[in-house]
Amino acid sequence: MSGIWGKNLQLSLFGESHGVAIGITINGLPPGLEIDMEQVLVEMARRAPGKNELTTPRKEKDHPEILSGFLDGKTTGAPLTAIIWNTNTRSKDYSVLKDVMRPGQADYPGRVRYNGHNDHRGSGHFSGRITAPLVFAGAICQQWLKQKGVTVGSHIQSIGTIEDETFEDQETVTLEQIEQFKEEQLPLFNAEKKVEMTDLILEAKEDGDSVGGVVETFVLGLDAGYGNPFFDSVESQLAHLVFAVPAIKGIEFGTGFDITKMRGSEANDEYYYDEQGRIKTRSNNNGGIIGGITYGMPIVFRAAVKPPASIKKKQQTINIQEGTETELEVEGRHDPCIVPRVLPVLEAVTAIGLMDLMLGGQSNE
Amino acid sequence: MSGIWGKNLQLSLFGESHGVAIGITINGLPPGLEIDMEQVLVEMARRAPGKNELTTPRKEKDHPEILSGFLDGKTTGAPLTAIIWNTNTRSKDYSVLKDVMRPGQADYPGRVRYNGHNDHRGSGHFSGRITAPLVFAGAICQQWLKQKGVTVGSHIQSIGTIEDETFEDQETVTLEQIEQFKEEQLPLFNAEKKVEMTDLILEAKEDGDSVGGVVETFVLGLDAGYGNPFFDSVESQLAHLVFAVPAIKGIEFGTGFDITKMRGSEANDEYYYDEQGRIKTRSNNNGGIIGGITYGMPIVFRAAVKPPASIKKKQQTINIQEGTETELEVEGRHDPCIVPRVLPVLEAVTAIGLMDLMLGGQSNE
Amino acid sequence: MSGIWGKNLQLSLFGESHGVAIGITINGLPPGLEIDMEQVLVEMARRAPGKNELTTPRKEKDHPEILSGFLDGKTTGAPLTAIIWNTNTRSKDYSVLKDVMRPGQADYPGRVRYNGHNDHRGSGHFSGRITAPLVFAGAICQQWLKQKGVTVGSHIQSIGTIEDETFEDQETVTLEQIEQFKEEQLPLFNAEKKVEMTDLILEAKEDGDSVGGVVETFVLGLDAGYGNPFFDSVESQLAHLVFAVPAIKGIEFGTGFDITKMRGSEANDEYYYDEQGRIKTRSNNNGGIIGGITYGMPIVFRAAVKPPASIKKKQQTINIQEGTETELEVEGRHDPCIVPRVLPVLEAVTAIGLMDLMLGGQSNE
Amino acid sequence: MSGIWGKNLQLSLFGESHGVAIGITINGLPPGLEIDMEQVLVEMARRAPGKNELTTPRKEKDHPEILSGFLDGKTTGAPLTAIIWNTNTRSKDYSVLKDVMRPGQADYPGRVRYNGHNDHRGSGHFSGRITAPLVFAGAICQQWLKQKGVTVGSHIQSIGTIEDETFEDQETVTLEQIEQFKEEQLPLFNAEKKVEMTDLILEAKEDGDSVGGVVETFVLGLDAGYGNPFFDSVESQLAHLVFAVPAIKGIEFGTGFDITKMRGSEANDEYYYDEQGRIKTRSNNNGGIIGGITYGMPIVFRAAVKPPASIKKKQQTINIQEGTETELEVEGRHDPCIVPRVLPVLEAVTAIGLMDLMLGGQSNE
Repeated sequence: MSGIWGKNLQLSLFGESHGVAIGITINGLPPGLEIDMEQVLVEMARRAPGKNELTTPRKEKDHPEILSGFLDGKTTGAPLTAIIWNTNTRSKDYSVLKDVMRPGQADYPGRVRYNGHNDHRGSGHFSGRITAPLVFAGAICQQWLKQKGVTVGSHIQSIGTIEDETFEDQETVTLEQIEQFKEEQLPLFNAEKKVEMTDLILEAKEDGDSVGGVVETFVLGLDAGYGNPFFDSVESQLAHLVFAVPAIKGIEFGTGFDITKMRGSEANDEYYYDEQGRIKTRSNNNGGIIGGITYGMPIVFRAAVKPPASIKKKQQTINIQEGTETELEVEGRHDPCIVPRVLPVLEAVTAIGLMDLMLGGQSNE
Repeated sequence: MSGIWGKNLQLSLFGESHGVAIGITINGLPPGLEIDMEQVLVEMARRAPGKNELTTPRKEKDHPEILSGFLDGKTTGAPLTAIIWNTNTRSKDYSVLKDVMRPGQADYPGRVRYNGHNDHRGSGHFSGRITAPLVFAGAICQQWLKQKGVTVGSHIQSIGTIEDETFEDQETVTLEQIEQFKEEQLPLFNAEKKVEMTDLILEAKEDGDSVGGVVETFVLGLDAGYGNPFFDSVESQLAHLVFAVPAIKGIEFGTGFDITKMRGSEANDEYYYDEQGRIKTRSNNNGGIIGGITYGMPIVFRAAVKPPASIKKKQQTINIQEGTETELEVEGRHDPCIVPRVLPVLEAVTAIGLMDLMLGGQSNE
Repeated sequence: MSGIWGKNLQLSLFGESHGVAIGITINGLPPGLEIDMEQVLVEMARRAPGKNELTTPRKEKDHPEILSGFLDGKTTGAPLTAIIWNTNTRSKDYSVLKDVMRPGQADYPGRVRYNGHNDHRGSGHFSGRITAPLVFAGAICQQWLKQKGVTVGSHIQSIGTIEDETFEDQETVTLEQIEQFKEEQLPLFNAEKKVEMTDLILEAKEDGDSVGGVVETFVLGLDAGYGNPFFDSVESQLAHLVFAVPAIKGIEFGTGFDITKMRGSEANDEYYYDEQGRIKTRSNNNGGIIGGITYGMPIVFRAAVKPPASIKKKQQTINIQEGTETELEVEGRHDPCIVPRVLPVLEAVTAIGLMDLMLGGQSNE
Repeated sequence: MSGIWGKNLQLSLFGESHGVAIGITINGLPPGLEIDMEQVLVEMARRAPGKNELTTPRKEKDHPEILSGFLDGKTTGAPLTAIIWNTNTRSKDYSVLKDVMRPGQADYPGRVRYNGHNDHRGSGHFSGRITAPLVFAGAICQQWLKQKGVTVGSHIQSIGTIEDETFEDQETVTLEQIEQFKEEQLPLFNAEKKVEMTDLILEAKEDGDSVGGVVETFVLGLDAGYGNPFFDSVESQLAHLVFAVPAIKGIEFGTGFDITKMRGSEANDEYYYDEQGRIKTRSNNNGGIIGGITYGMPIVFRAAVKPPASIKKKQQTINIQEGTETELEVEGRHDPCIVPRVLPVLEAVTAIGLMDLMLGGQSNE
């Protein structure tokens, strides 16, 4: 089992929900990179629990402490490690769960994988809380990307069956709008859907249940020529990281599954020269990537977020120690919907994946 | 740019559509593995072009020649390299395409990535033909998996808007049925859809156009406990490889995007003991993977295959050498639909991804 | 720049001499491994500074705090992170050294590599202090190896020109002797050399100078069949890690450079069956490794440790900021000889390298 | 078992001595690199057998056939694969050796590692012949390095006990001299030693025996700032590759083992500004690398080459199939000394290691 990822930018992730601390080491950050810690904390606050009625009441300050690789406000080029102390842990909530396998959670597969030695408290290393260090790393990557003119944004595409407009529906998406989205709990192109979505989440909460949704992420300002055919395609790179985020069950680029219903003549994105002589495509059905390589149009993808598995509602399951079937009502502090908290995580892993690619150079010459 | 993938099983892929030969080196095959070459050739024939009216008339025997790592019908444990000679190349078809960027193809992004030095003949290294060595490798992996009781199968979920039943709709899928599927051009649970699908493909062909579709792949017999949380999740592993296959634009596991419309109480797969005392789930919305780890139910995923970009129909594009806009009718031998030929490729990369995981062991102890 | 190493056992190393903390994350430890923390602290104490007159007076408790991957005295299978706080830092000693490049230290190459952004205090990330987390990791690996019957030991082969007997000179080396060596400051087969070596070190210390030496490391109990030809040879694996230890300038396996003066008939290690029917060789000129693979005899190698570069004696060098030549007398707390402190580090990296190999299995079948 | 190495430049090596073909795939070559094939063949001829009385009479043309990644005399940026057909194989020479373990050869460890399935003919994948593809790859890397002003050279430091002068003894080593060395069977600074060395080799040959030696390799023109502390040190990188070459048992950088006999004040390389204002050191005891990073002086290392294990002289060993002790006289075509043929291999892996480092950039900014 490995918490290590990356080629040019390498991450090492660690920690359990109710352990001493969680954290991450980032290798490959260019020396001399100034980090705006205020902005990092903004990203981490977007993911942090306990903000309002839509999320779990567990409160964690999620304040990262940098241990290495950082001096006088700049990266040194050495491995940068940051940790977040776990302070608000209520492990007793989970003690009964050691033997009763929660449906939809990693309890059972994790127990098999680690021969029963994994830390089961609050899902241990499987906890969504371990995405906090990813957001920390991604926030730094986003600052580097911004220097290169690249911006990552996202909005809620849907909660349950309630849908927002898509990125492709928009004439333009400005950097101001992306900034604005970061401040909102439910960032939407069509703000009128906000009430409906909120109601749907609160209804589920009242029922001791949960709901899922879809997040659409987009990348602006990335030049043509990044990525590779086959194993190191941009889609492979991003999908690998997106499926590293707990609760993600699907990803599609550009028009995605709908492109399968088009004919080639419709699906193909035709090239033209815009007024400044830049090469553009009239449609963007391929979501900015063909042959595994960027072509200068926005990268666009949607990720399916399943409804949180931890619910108060009664469920059937097994007690694996006793070998019996049993009923379960999961107590504790739960999110009725994690989609709003997943947004900054998806932006983070997107930024991480792109920075790794860009550090490898546009062409190898 | 790297044609290398894997940890315990490592692949090195090479070749261009109109070069001397294409091939692959496989590292990490256990020594003493008997390879049934007949069965390997069956898999390669499924992917090979020129079989019938549904595919490109380019004929290649796709007969792999093993250069190393194989002695007296068994693997030696040393790197196993196989090559396929390119014999039926008509490069002149492509000479005009050096400067005119075909929409939907890797011509433009590839040109930027390789500063114009990439082999443009027949898409060069970007060609779908380079998947032939992947099918070779995957066929060997499938034989190893079979010894471990693991079987990979797939069917066509849809062509354009015409849909087959899903794996989840079936009461059982037998190994015989999977074998049978391998012999069919359009493997379907509901065979009655075959005519409709064929008509749709031929219609597009007549129009000088193309159609896409969805492939559903499933894995039977895999125990609980393979995979890892975060970066090395089974979904990350498989998605990485699936997006390495040209023309794939989406992937979803289990219920996929539809799980986002369920409530948690519906989405959660409840555990029970079956009559043999084995742990099962009543539904399989998570497609066999939770927390990045298998839980003993079938792995199920669907992949979106876009319509082939090479079409005869007139398209708008640019001549990048002259800096002008132009029209293009792509001559040459094209597939009106590659979905049937993508099936064995998806099974191959699935087998490759799983064997790499399984060689790492079920638990680390 | 990467602090990440390994395949089956993966390490992520971080920290600077005068930063907040140093540490390491270990991936791939089998779940359920009991760790004897007392024994870990014994290994760390061997490396720690400030023990006696032979080493630097800087005192650090070097007490690792485990943050993750460890519960109830056992590994969980999740990444195990440990940190050591830096408490006794006297950064002002080093402030003058930002621009004056100390000969034999990484000041100048590090400055170029990191564009002047590297933490220069106490050599920053280049400090020998960063080997403390390696010893922590190695101590855990040694406990795992012991369970498999494998023991790593070492002695001082030479300090300056004063030589100990070699491992090959011994009829037997018992586990008790290896344990005994771990308790000694100057572990020697020929204890009579101790006084001479001590005098040599203290003489150099008095002169504000330093001395080097050679460490011989040996591995007992390792079966035949670990390792690989070419890139993943056991020699490549161990040499890679040994040269990761600061101040090492050479390594030789078995008879090493002296084998070049033998004829093949003398150099070849002839096989025979011992009384228990086990395969042995009469000599061990190849140091336990042929073709990159172990053959069941002890692994033996010697590593050259250069004299510490930080000395009080006046040296010529440059002030790189001013572009002038200058003289330098390095103040601060220095080791006149680091050979005794390097021993546990070399044992640690040897154990790390072997555990990584052994986790990969003896044969791939 | 893996034939894969590298990060920015990735190699995949394959083949057996008496199989169909041997070869290599190179990933990461910059697109558009012109390759001078004449020069590549010169390097391969230096390593090839059968040139004169000092080496094995087995004759192989060692003419590489490029299969991919190369068009119109230039790299395309796609994986470049080259193979060399095995034509002059006399497998019957080796048939008796399946069960009789040759001392000093990989027969026994390889048999354990691969459960007896490895190709034993002519040492199979363990054969020194597999270094031919490494020389091919290294020759390309050397051409790239030359464009960057970097030159790799080597000479014979010793054969048996007969020593040449060292690189450090020379006032200057010119590029002409390095070119000249490449044309010689026994390249020496002190040409007068040639007769003695030749005699020593021929004497051993007459006795059915073999001799070893030391090769000194040096790199001119490499700037300061390449490499990393700890795991990715230049010494780790080069030692890893050098120990991938069969028959190497030791490596030392700069003054190497002799530095352990110096005091720090003597060992430290003092900086100064030369007449052009460039930073230099007065000595080069560290062999061009401190803290794992280059400092702009030549890289210098020596590698110990053991005497070839295949000798005609009678040896004691075991028949592992029968479990008996036996005598052995190895028939076939042998090298009495492989030092001259190892030179181009060591230059090749040095060039490979450096190009990989340099592609990663001098500093990460």
